[in-house]
Amino acid sequence: MSLHGFETRPHNGLTHVIDKGLGPRAWEDVLETCGDYISIVKLGWGTAYVTPNLGRKLEVLREKPVVIGGTFLEAVIAQDKVDEYKRWITGLGLTHVEISDGVIDLERERKLELIADFAADFIVLSEVGSKDAEVVFAPYQWVEWIREELAAGAWKVITEGREGGTAGIYRPTGEMRTGLVDEIVHEIEPSELIFEAPTKSSQAWFVKHFGSNVNLGNIPPEEVIPLETLRLGLRGDTLQEVLLGGETAPAG
Amino acid sequence: MSLHGFETRPHNGLTHVIDKGLGPRAWEDVLETCGDYISIVKLGWGTAYVTPNLGRKLEVLREKPVVIGGTFLEAVIAQDKVDEYKRWITGLGLTHVEISDGVIDLERERKLELIADFAADFIVLSEVGSKDAEVVFAPYQWVEWIREELAAGAWKVITEGREGGTAGIYRPTGEMRTGLVDEIVHEIEPSELIFEAPTKSSQAWFVKHFGSNVNLGNIPPEEVIPLETLRLGLRGDTLQEVLLGGETAPAG
Amino acid sequence: MSLHGFETRPHNGLTHVIDKGLGPRAWEDVLETCGDYISIVKLGWGTAYVTPNLGRKLEVLREKPVVIGGTFLEAVIAQDKVDEYKRWITGLGLTHVEISDGVIDLERERKLELIADFAADFIVLSEVGSKDAEVVFAPYQWVEWIREELAAGAWKVITEGREGGTAGIYRPTGEMRTGLVDEIVHEIEPSELIFEAPTKSSQAWFVKHFGSNVNLGNIPPEEVIPLETLRLGLRGDTLQEVLLGGETAPAG
Repeated sequence: MSLHGFETRPHNGLTHVIDKGLGPRAWEDVLETCGDYISIVKLGWGTAYVTPNLGRKLEVLREKPVVIGGTFLEAVIAQDKVDEYKRWITGLGLTHVEISDGVIDLERERKLELIADFAADFIVLSEVGSKDAEVVFAPYQWVEWIREELAAGAWKVITEGREGGTAGIYRPTGEMRTGLVDEIVHEIEPSELIFEAPTKSSQAWFVKHFGSNVNLGNIPPEEVIPLETLRLGLRGDTLQEVLLGGETAPAG
Repeated sequence: MSLHGFETRPHNGLTHVIDKGLGPRAWEDVLETCGDYISIVKLGWGTAYVTPNLGRKLEVLREKPVVIGGTFLEAVIAQDKVDEYKRWITGLGLTHVEISDGVIDLERERKLELIADFAADFIVLSEVGSKDAEVVFAPYQWVEWIREELAAGAWKVITEGREGGTAGIYRPTGEMRTGLVDEIVHEIEPSELIFEAPTKSSQAWFVKHFGSNVNLGNIPPEEVIPLETLRLGLRGDTLQEVLLGGETAPAG
Repeated sequence: MSLHGFETRPHNGLTHVIDKGLGPRAWEDVLETCGDYISIVKLGWGTAYVTPNLGRKLEVLREKPVVIGGTFLEAVIAQDKVDEYKRWITGLGLTHVEISDGVIDLERERKLELIADFAADFIVLSEVGSKDAEVVFAPYQWVEWIREELAAGAWKVITEGREGGTAGIYRPTGEMRTGLVDEIVHEIEPSELIFEAPTKSSQAWFVKHFGSNVNLGNIPPEEVIPLETLRLGLRGDTLQEVLLGGETAPAG
C-alpha cells in the first residue's frame, strides 16, 4: 500500500548508531523497524565489555557491521593489551574497529601506527577530537590529523561529539562549532567523514548545510527513523530545504 | 489485589500520544502496561511513510485511533497529492486525520476547505501555531483560527508545541506562554482543545491550572504512566492540588 | 570469549533503579542485559498503583527487591490508610518499603515511628530532603535527620534528588550541591546512604569523589550499563581516575 505519486529523493548518507546497552528484544524491534537505515552499530565506549549476553546481542545484530567504542580500546592500550584485544574482537566476529585518543594521551606516531596496523585486518574508523569539553584545537590541526589518519588507512574519520553533543565539534553548551565544521569540510570531502550528531538540532543543521548524503554518527537507536525523515525532508526542520527547495544533497 | 479504601478521582482527559518510530514489540509492551490511558496515537510527522513494517505496527495498534502527523500532509499538499493521500490512509484503515500548517504557507481558506472536506470521511484534528519558534501570533489570532477550524468541522484543535515543547504555546527555551494559554481558554472550552505538552513541567502546569480532565498531546509513550499519576495526584507535582486539595477537574 | 589479561576492579556499590512504567518485555530485556548490576528496583511514586499488569510485572522482577516510591506512601498517609498499605504490599510479595516526606508535612516523631513500625516487617529505605526545589535545609539538619532515621531502623537513607536531579542535593538547574554532599559524608558513612543521581554528570561526580562503591539511586534502567562502565573506569569520564589512577573505591 503506497502513496501513489508522492516522491522523495534517495540518499546514500551513512547512519552510524550508538548503543549504550539495549537488550536483544529491543534490538530486534529496532532492526525490524529501521534496520534499512542503519549503516553501522557502535557499542559505546566500554559497554560491550560489561554486557553479559554480548554473544546473543551480536547474534541479533549479525547483519550489521558492529564496532566497539574507541574509549575501550584506549583503556586496552593503557593496559598494553592490544594484541589480546585484536584476538578478542576477532573471536567476536567483528570486522570493524574504532581507534581514538579522546581520553588518554597517545602520541601521533603511535596512533597512526595503530591505524595502519589494524587496517591490515579490519575496517578502521578513527576519531579526532578530545572528549574533554575544555580542550579546543584549531581547525588547521583537525584537518592535518584527519588527513594523516586517512593516509594511514582509516576508512572514515569521525569528528568527536560525545554521546551528548558537548565536546569536540560542539561547545559544552551543545551549540555546534559551525566555523570549525565549515573549515574542515572546506579541506576534506564530507564523504570521508562521519560527524557525531546526537541531537536533532545538530542533525538538521548537517542535512541543511551538507545535504541528505552527509554521514552522521552517534545516532541513538530511537532517533534513526526521525533522522531518516530529516534526510528526506519529511519533518518540519528540513521540509522546505530538502523536499520543496529542490536542493540536491552533495555530501556523499 | 487492591489497596482497600484508598481513593482517587476518575477523569476523562484525553491523552494523545506521539510515536516517533517504536517497533511492534515495544508497542505491545506499552499497550499492555498503559493502553487504558491512551486515547489516540499520532505517528509523528513523516515517520509512518518511512516505516517499512507499518502494516504490522498498525495491526498492533488496531484498538487505538491512529493519526498521521500533520507535517506529512503538508508535504503531500506541497506535492499536490491530497486525493492520493486520502486513498492511502483509507487503505491503511485510518479513521482520523491531522491537518496543520506549521511548516508550509497555506491560505486560511484552503485550510478550512481541507478541514471541511476531510471531515466528511474522517475525524479531523486540526492544529494551530507555527513550528517556527521565531513566529509569534497574538492571542486573539489564535482564538479566531481555533473557532474557524472548529466551525469547519474539526473534532478538536491542537495547540502547537512541537515534539520538544519549543514553539507555538512554548518559548524556544521551553517555557510556556502562560498568558497566551490563559487567553485561549478564556474564549474556548478546553474540552475542544488538545494542548501539546511533551514535558513533565508543562503537563503538571496544565493539570494544576485546568484540572485532571485537560486534553494533552504529544505525550511520549514512556510518559503515559507518569502523566496518569499527575492527573490522579499520585506524583509530588500535583499531589497537594489534585489528591489532597479536593479541587475537582473542570476541564472536560 | 574473554579479553585475556585485561583487568578491572570489582566493586560493591548499590545500583538502585527507578522505573516509571516499563512493560514486562522491556524488563525482561533489561534484566537479561544488566540484571547483574541492579541491586533494587523502585516503582517510582504512584506508578505501581496505576499499572494494570502489576502482578505480571512483579513476576518478571521476582529476583530483584522491588520497592514502591515513597510519594505513594505519603498519599496513603494523607488518606490514613497505612495498615491497608501494609496489607497491600505484603499481598504483592514486597519485602522493602520506602518512607519519605518530600511532599506532605509529616512530623519528625511520626516519620520515625513509621520507620520503626515498618522496620519490624520490612527492609526500610527512608528518604531525606524535599521534592520542592525551593526548599533548602542546612547540612547539619540533613545529618541529624539521617542519623535519627538510621537509629529508628532504616536500612539505608536516600538523599533526595528527584527523577530529574532538580531538588534536594541538586539545585533547580541540575547542578549538585557539592558542599552539602561533602558535609553529609563527613559525618555519615557513605555505605549507609543512597545518593539519588539520575544524570551521568552526577554519577561521574560521585564515582570520582567517593569511589566505585558509592551507592547511587534513581538510575534509569537504560543507564545501568553506562553507570557500570563509570564504576569500572570504562568510560571517558572516569577512565583516568578509576582505571588508570589506581585509586581504590573507599565508599562501600
